[in-house]
Amino acid sequence: GFARIDHHRKLRTGFGEVIFCKGKTKEQVAVIFDRLAARDTSVLATKATKEQYEAVLAVCPQAEYQENGGLITLIREQPQYIGEVAVCTAGTADIPVAEEAAATAAFFGANVKRYYDVGVAGIHRLFDKLPEIERANVVIAVAGMEGALAGVLAGMIDKPVIAVPTSVGYGANFHGLSALLTMLNSCADGISVVNIDNGYGAGYLGAQINRLVTGKGEE
Amino acid sequence: GFARIDHHRKLRTGFGEVIFCKGKTKEQVAVIFDRLAARDTSVLATKATKEQYEAVLAVCPQAEYQENGGLITLIREQPQYIGEVAVCTAGTADIPVAEEAAATAAFFGANVKRYYDVGVAGIHRLFDKLPEIERANVVIAVAGMEGALAGVLAGMIDKPVIAVPTSVGYGANFHGLSALLTMLNSCADGISVVNIDNGYGAGYLGAQINRLVTGKGEE
Amino acid sequence: GFARIDHHRKLRTGFGEVIFCKGKTKEQVAVIFDRLAARDTSVLATKATKEQYEAVLAVCPQAEYQENGGLITLIREQPQYIGEVAVCTAGTADIPVAEEAAATAAFFGANVKRYYDVGVAGIHRLFDKLPEIERANVVIAVAGMEGALAGVLAGMIDKPVIAVPTSVGYGANFHGLSALLTMLNSCADGISVVNIDNGYGAGYLGAQINRLVTGKGEE
Amino acid sequence: GFARIDHHRKLRTGFGEVIFCKGKTKEQVAVIFDRLAARDTSVLATKATKEQYEAVLAVCPQAEYQENGGLITLIREQPQYIGEVAVCTAGTADIPVAEEAAATAAFFGANVKRYYDVGVAGIHRLFDKLPEIERANVVIAVAGMEGALAGVLAGMIDKPVIAVPTSVGYGANFHGLSALLTMLNSCADGISVVNIDNGYGAGYLGAQINRLVTGKGEE
Amino acid sequence: GFARIDHHRKLRTGFGEVIFCKGKTKEQVAVIFDRLAARDTSVLATKATKEQYEAVLAVCPQAEYQENGGLITLIREQPQYIGEVAVCTAGTADIPVAEEAAATAAFFGANVKRYYDVGVAGIHRLFDKLPEIERANVVIAVAGMEGALAGVLAGMIDKPVIAVPTSVGYGANFHGLSALLTMLNSCADGISVVNIDNGYGAGYLGAQINRLVTGKGEE
Amino acid sequence: GFARIDHHRKLRTGFGEVIFCKGKTKEQVAVIFDRLAARDTSVLATKATKEQYEAVLAVCPQAEYQENGGLITLIREQPQYIGEVAVCTAGTADIPVAEEAAATAAFFGANVKRYYDVGVAGIHRLFDKLPEIERANVVIAVAGMEGALAGVLAGMIDKPVIAVPTSVGYGANFHGLSALLTMLNSCADGISVVNIDNGYGAGYLGAQINRLVTGKGEE
Amino acid sequence: GFARIDHHRKLRTGFGEVIFCKGKTKEQVAVIFDRLAARDTSVLATKATKEQYEAVLAVCPQAEYQENGGLITLIREQPQYIGEVAVCTAGTADIPVAEEAAATAAFFGANVKRYYDVGVAGIHRLFDKLPEIERANVVIAVAGMEGALAGVLAGMIDKPVIAVPTSVGYGANFHGLSALLTMLNSCADGISVVNIDNGYGAGYLGAQINRLVTGKGEE
Amino acid sequence: GFARIDHHRKLRTGFGEVIFCKGKTKEQVAVIFDRLAARDTSVLATKATKEQYEAVLAVCPQAEYQENGGLITLIREQPQYIGEVAVCTAGTADIPVAEEAAATAAFFGANVKRYYDVGVAGIHRLFDKLPEIERANVVIAVAGMEGALAGVLAGMIDKPVIAVPTSVGYGANFHGLSALLTMLNSCADGISVVNIDNGYGAGYLGAQINRLVTGKGEE
Ligand SMILES: Nc1ncnc2c1ncn2[C@@H]1O[C@H](COP(=O)(O)O)[C@@H](O)[C@H]1O
Ligand SMILES: Nc1ncnc2c1ncn2[C@@H]1O[C@H](COP(=O)(O)O)[C@@H](O)[C@H]1O
Ligand SMILES: Nc1ncnc2c1ncn2[C@@H]1O[C@H](COP(=O)(O)O)[C@@H](O)[C@H]1O
Ligand SMILES: Nc1ncnc2c1ncn2[C@@H]1O[C@H](COP(=O)(O)O)[C@@H](O)[C@H]1O
Ligand SMILES: [Mg+2]
Ligand SMILES: [Mg+2]
Ligand SMILES: [Mg+2]
Ligand SMILES: [Mg+2]
Ligand SMILES: [Mg+2]
Ligand SMILES: [Mg+2]
Ligand SMILES: [Mg+2]
Ligand SMILES: [Mg+2]
Repeated sequence: GFARIDHHRKLRTGFGEVIFCKGKTKEQVAVIFDRLAARDTSVLATKATKEQYEAVLAVCPQAEYQENGGLITLIREQPQYIGEVAVCTAGTADIPVAEEAAATAAFFGANVKRYYDVGVAGIHRLFDKLPEIERANVVIAVAGMEGALAGVLAGMIDKPVIAVPTSVGYGANFHGLSALLTMLNSCADGISVVNIDNGYGAGYLGAQINRLVTGKGEE
Repeated sequence: GFARIDHHRKLRTGFGEVIFCKGKTKEQVAVIFDRLAARDTSVLATKATKEQYEAVLAVCPQAEYQENGGLITLIREQPQYIGEVAVCTAGTADIPVAEEAAATAAFFGANVKRYYDVGVAGIHRLFDKLPEIERANVVIAVAGMEGALAGVLAGMIDKPVIAVPTSVGYGANFHGLSALLTMLNSCADGISVVNIDNGYGAGYLGAQINRLVTGKGEE
Repeated sequence: GFARIDHHRKLRTGFGEVIFCKGKTKEQVAVIFDRLAARDTSVLATKATKEQYEAVLAVCPQAEYQENGGLITLIREQPQYIGEVAVCTAGTADIPVAEEAAATAAFFGANVKRYYDVGVAGIHRLFDKLPEIERANVVIAVAGMEGALAGVLAGMIDKPVIAVPTSVGYGANFHGLSALLTMLNSCADGISVVNIDNGYGAGYLGAQINRLVTGKGEE
Repeated sequence: GFARIDHHRKLRTGFGEVIFCKGKTKEQVAVIFDRLAARDTSVLATKATKEQYEAVLAVCPQAEYQENGGLITLIREQPQYIGEVAVCTAGTADIPVAEEAAATAAFFGANVKRYYDVGVAGIHRLFDKLPEIERANVVIAVAGMEGALAGVLAGMIDKPVIAVPTSVGYGANFHGLSALLTMLNSCADGISVVNIDNGYGAGYLGAQINRLVTGKGEE
Repeated sequence: GFARIDHHRKLRTGFGEVIFCKGKTKEQVAVIFDRLAARDTSVLATKATKEQYEAVLAVCPQAEYQENGGLITLIREQPQYIGEVAVCTAGTADIPVAEEAAATAAFFGANVKRYYDVGVAGIHRLFDKLPEIERANVVIAVAGMEGALAGVLAGMIDKPVIAVPTSVGYGANFHGLSALLTMLNSCADGISVVNIDNGYGAGYLGAQINRLVTGKGEE
Repeated sequence: GFARIDHHRKLRTGFGEVIFCKGKTKEQVAVIFDRLAARDTSVLATKATKEQYEAVLAVCPQAEYQENGGLITLIREQPQYIGEVAVCTAGTADIPVAEEAAATAAFFGANVKRYYDVGVAGIHRLFDKLPEIERANVVIAVAGMEGALAGVLAGMIDKPVIAVPTSVGYGANFHGLSALLTMLNSCADGISVVNIDNGYGAGYLGAQINRLVTGKGEE
Repeated sequence: GFARIDHHRKLRTGFGEVIFCKGKTKEQVAVIFDRLAARDTSVLATKATKEQYEAVLAVCPQAEYQENGGLITLIREQPQYIGEVAVCTAGTADIPVAEEAAATAAFFGANVKRYYDVGVAGIHRLFDKLPEIERANVVIAVAGMEGALAGVLAGMIDKPVIAVPTSVGYGANFHGLSALLTMLNSCADGISVVNIDNGYGAGYLGAQINRLVTGKGEE
Repeated sequence: GFARIDHHRKLRTGFGEVIFCKGKTKEQVAVIFDRLAARDTSVLATKATKEQYEAVLAVCPQAEYQENGGLITLIREQPQYIGEVAVCTAGTADIPVAEEAAATAAFFGANVKRYYDVGVAGIHRLFDKLPEIERANVVIAVAGMEGALAGVLAGMIDKPVIAVPTSVGYGANFHGLSALLTMLNSCADGISVVNIDNGYGAGYLGAQINRLVTGKGEE
């Protein structure tokens, strides 16, 4: 078989497996999705194209697609949403990555609040929202180009900030390298970084920390 | 003056300011250390050389130096240690960075457990320790060269893993780039990354998450 | 002429020439394929597109195409398969490169066993297969993203591991650079690396070592 | 001769020639300094070591050295200082580069105000100073590590911001690349960038713009 | 909402907000454009595709498109053009970026003069134009490939030169890196650099300096 | 106008101007071609697409197109071919770049001999041709992937070798960087390098040296 | 403890643990060496400085040091040398890395033959030695600068070639990157690559293949 | 032996072997120097330190050292100098590399003229010298930082220009990468590039072309 599904994972890490669609044929995505769906759990597929979604739909008609974010979901039963994860973006073009993060965090049981287009070029937009953002257990900061949002946020609040550099921009952004380096070199405390455009990774980690903080870490 | 101390920070983020010694003259380090010490709080200085320590000692005779890790500390009163942060290294040469992380996490009030030299080249050494590591609220994984330890750990436990790439190695490690990229591209869930050799950043974030999880997040 | 076929090579290195199709026009591929086919040997062409295959088909109707892997083959007479080469992948998206490796190793006379989707994110999947993998004379480890599979394998078995980084992933994988650096910096023993996505090179080298070990090295 | 002094330059660009000491022997620096001093103008030498200064001192006893900034100066007659250039740094370790900028701007006739250690990790320190900074005709923002200061400044004031990335930091700062890319990719308006650690270039340009704005551009 | 318009900006920085279209859907561009147009100011959108323009046109029929430069504009009332900004290119292929700069500078009220195809490969073409170029308050130098134009210009005139590296070229230009590094390392005085292909940033900064120099800086 | 034709060049450098088509619109190419053609000289355009050729054809019906190499030529009168330039390629996929070089050298009056597919993987193919290659005044060596051909050639013959790295290959060739670095670091004597895929530059330089050697350097 | 010795390794992989000294204090090296020596096996330490050797000597007086190659060895009983591994260098400066490889291969039981300074700049030196080199079971090719030796060798012989890029050279060798890329992109068959300057890794792998081929693979 | 001297080379390429000292021990340099000296030819050693020179001096008392350029020479009999090679530098700090080029070209029999410190920041200094420079058969242009000198020269004269990027500069010069890319991307005709700081390579090639042009190419 071309894919060995990691059914142990739910036991080992507390969450179900998720399908990473990039680089898989649409047939492969559909088969894997179908196999997971057969186990009666909710299923999440990320970085999915419309073509891959259509192949999934043919075998699993209840699957839904969120084009902005590239996500296929099959929600069996709504989780009991707990705690709070804040997802912020610097600009409008960062939203697809933020949606990947937000949908993932929600899939894994977190209440999610969105704060979009609050980047540092007009920093008062961010300050207005700070008291609200601060209420979350963990903050996901999504930014491309110079990527300064994450460090500025981490400098102002006392919650873990998960920084997601995006490939938004052009020229010397070198496909997200610029934002990545900015975030890695932040002088602020309480910040860590995931891969460029990796909304999924940030959403998972955000949900994980949120769950630990709200006292659901042990089950 | 050459340094504006951020006395607000403790209010804003819950932790006091820390002195980053790299690039500062020994005179500057001593003056800043002294000024912070004058406020009767514990003081931490990172990436400090022996020369910088000696300058500090002249103005602040109770300051202590941990050569392995490059830390100067002045501990006024032992914090009440809470929760647990695990600090793991892949090899022996990664220990100075791990010590920076461990000392920082302890400074900010976390119980710290060390698991050194448990890298993937002899993976059974890691497996023996897993049940113990898993008891921590957050795991700091310090590794150079290929840097695979962090991803392997994150794949096996359900706690946030803070990955610290180190510059340990030679040749195509490109001063830590190799471990950094490995960690950023990890397929495992629940992992995020700080700067190369940034034990301080990992220790702070580990203490922060640990504090939130053990229910001290609000004060 | 646009191509000087290296007919000496079989004498010099023991294996026939192989056509590398990338960058050649479909007409060029067809002419070269035809010329080699005219010598009554089996022919292999790698990194071939469907269009190139169709041009070959027009001049050589028995030629076959394996889309997953991009290979055109003309098998005159089945080789006598000897020894064993194991081909492992970390994920599903690495399979095309693994197929290039597997088909090449088979073309040059090796028995090939495939172990797909056994990456380190769910490391028990790999452990289950270890006793079987260990029976091979040489192991080809194909992995993208963080690329940790090869080093973990090399740390657990006493056979040469040929590491093939793939361009699978996104963002800070930098088109395979991440997996390449991971593999080059592996702390494990008995590992070496070929170019990103170079299934062919790994398959050739695997077959070569396998042939030497099974005592056919001299003919 | 090893150096052709560009005496036309004052006519052509309005300012005298400056000696860039890096890569020159101390003898060469001394000879060039002496030749310029012989023309009765003020002389500036940048990126100078103490050894180079001592060689200059032997031939030109009135020359002065500013260790913090690496500058040798010979001031014949105090210029009539005009306008205002603000020089800001993110941290303490950025000060040597800032001093190079400040001294250069003053050498070319600008009033200079210094705002040091006002980086974004404690952004209130910056806000306190904004009304004052805004009074300058041009702002020089010097920052290493993540380098976010320049973009944040440019987003808040309506004056040209000259961004100077510094090599301050470690690891994934890649000797200043991080701050450089941050500044080049800033989403703020009214910002441009000079070479890493190039305090001189920023100081010259700042003085030039300041002079044009205060109406002394023509003489 | 997906975009928080920065209406304060005109107050804060003296110029209105501009829409950066890259990475936004055509629907998003149209909505934002429409919202800004509703405030009766002129509107500028950069890096816009024809599809984005057509979406804007549907909601705002007076909007105009300049394909060469990728700009959508809605001019309510012609500004009173002041001072002079010179825009130079090294070659013909650099013109789209230069047009972005020129249109932006004009949008913000500068008289603009264009000097195209005056690169250093035939340096007499540049010398013929120097006396004219020198009359501007600020010079924008747009060049790809080796990017030497900006430094040569800055060496010959006593006005600030804003260097815009372009991605024009191939091979070891590495998508504009070559021209970017050339410009950052220029030995000439009075030069600073913006992002690769960032005509907008250069045009804004050029207009800002021009406005300050012609004495309109205070309003 | 968008292009200032450098008519002085023939006087200054001895050869006419050439049109570099990359980045120009097809209309621009046609206009420039037409203007040059109007001066009764032969015209060469490089890196031209079929679309650009068709636009040229409309205004200049005698223009010819060489798809393999991307060249448009208008030959008024055959030059008197002198001396000899050898053009070698490592593989078949390098031929388009080699044809650009060969056609350029011929355009500028050199006799050209082609030696294609003589790379080091089958080094006897190269040795067979050495005595012939050695007769040229200058050798152009075109190679992608590892790019070793140029250094091996330079080690065996006593004529200048112009090395042209190509972007042929994949993975860690990084679009020609690999061959470029190989050639720059060659331990052989008498070798220099042009830009990746720059057949034109090599052809021009080859013709220039050839002309000097055959004693036509002075006219 | 700072080091968990992998005593299982000999069972698992057939070879004993080796000490990698880089990044360890001399005290750590001495303690680890001593602990391994206490088990009555031969001990090998690589990348060792003279200081580290002296610390080892204090606890283990029979230990020997090979400065050229940076190796500390304690040989309990001479292994029964089998088969043959050829170690070739391109130049003289590559010898330390080659010695690391040769000593490692010998330590693990291989007969080793050295062929030094046979690089491609004078390729006849290599040809003279080919018949001899070809007798080995595996060839280690050590080269810096352009690194072409490995590919040329692999093109001429029918044995696995392990390519070791070295950091020998300057400028655009970028500390070994040039040779590394050359070797990864080699068009020859039967070649794979280890880290820059990693003589140890090549020696180990060479000995491992050699052992398998001579039929000692099973014990 | 550690070095196989390439005595064939003079026959094959017309010039004797040269010792590249970087990475060799001083003992090795001395032995090789001595062996070559024993053959009664002149000897040249490049990139030599003072220590290496002293070791040579012990075995070969007539050897001379040129510190500025790092060259050891033993001149048996003055060559008959022919033709002319021009060596130009942009700045004073480029002189050591230029001296390596000049001394090498002279060693191989060329008349050499030096034009130092004629870089583009003060371009009139270059223009003054043009008529003289143009008389040479080949021009070597040595420049660091932005490296524009080579392209400007090639644009103005009709002789081959050999561009030598140097590592002179700091920050975003990235140890010579900046000048290297500038030169590779030059839009001028008749230019080719050697390795960063490779004065030797340029000097050799310059002498080789000069010899061919002056009609000594055939012997
Ligand atoms: N080792 C470290 N790496 C990165 N950041 C640090 C480190 N140590 C301290 N810091 C941060 O740097 C700040 C102090 O910077 P400074 O004002 O330059 O001393 C501290 O408040 C920390 O947020
Ligand atoms: N071509 C451009 N390149 C860089 N920045 C731009 C460009 N066009 C507009 N901007 C900036 O981007 C801001 C708008 O970003 P956004 O809110 O994402 O539309 C504008 O206010 C400008 O400061
Ligand atoms: N393929 C090429 N690569 C690099 N430079 C070229 C190429 N073709 C032409 N050129 C140069 O580019 C100049 C024309 O540039 P342009 O004025 O933009 O058409 C010619 O005079 C040549 O010097
Ligand atoms: N400075 C230099 N840079 C590059 N190559 C050099 C240099 N000096 C000498 N060489 C070349 O290196 C060869 C000697 O290398 P080796 O045998 O290691 O001494 C000479 O024959 C030259 O071809
Ligand atoms: Mg914080
Ligand atoms: Mg986990
Ligand atoms: Mg192994
Ligand atoms: Mg502003
Ligand atoms: Mg100027
Ligand atoms: Mg030669
Ligand atoms: Mg071979
Ligand atoms: Mg020329």
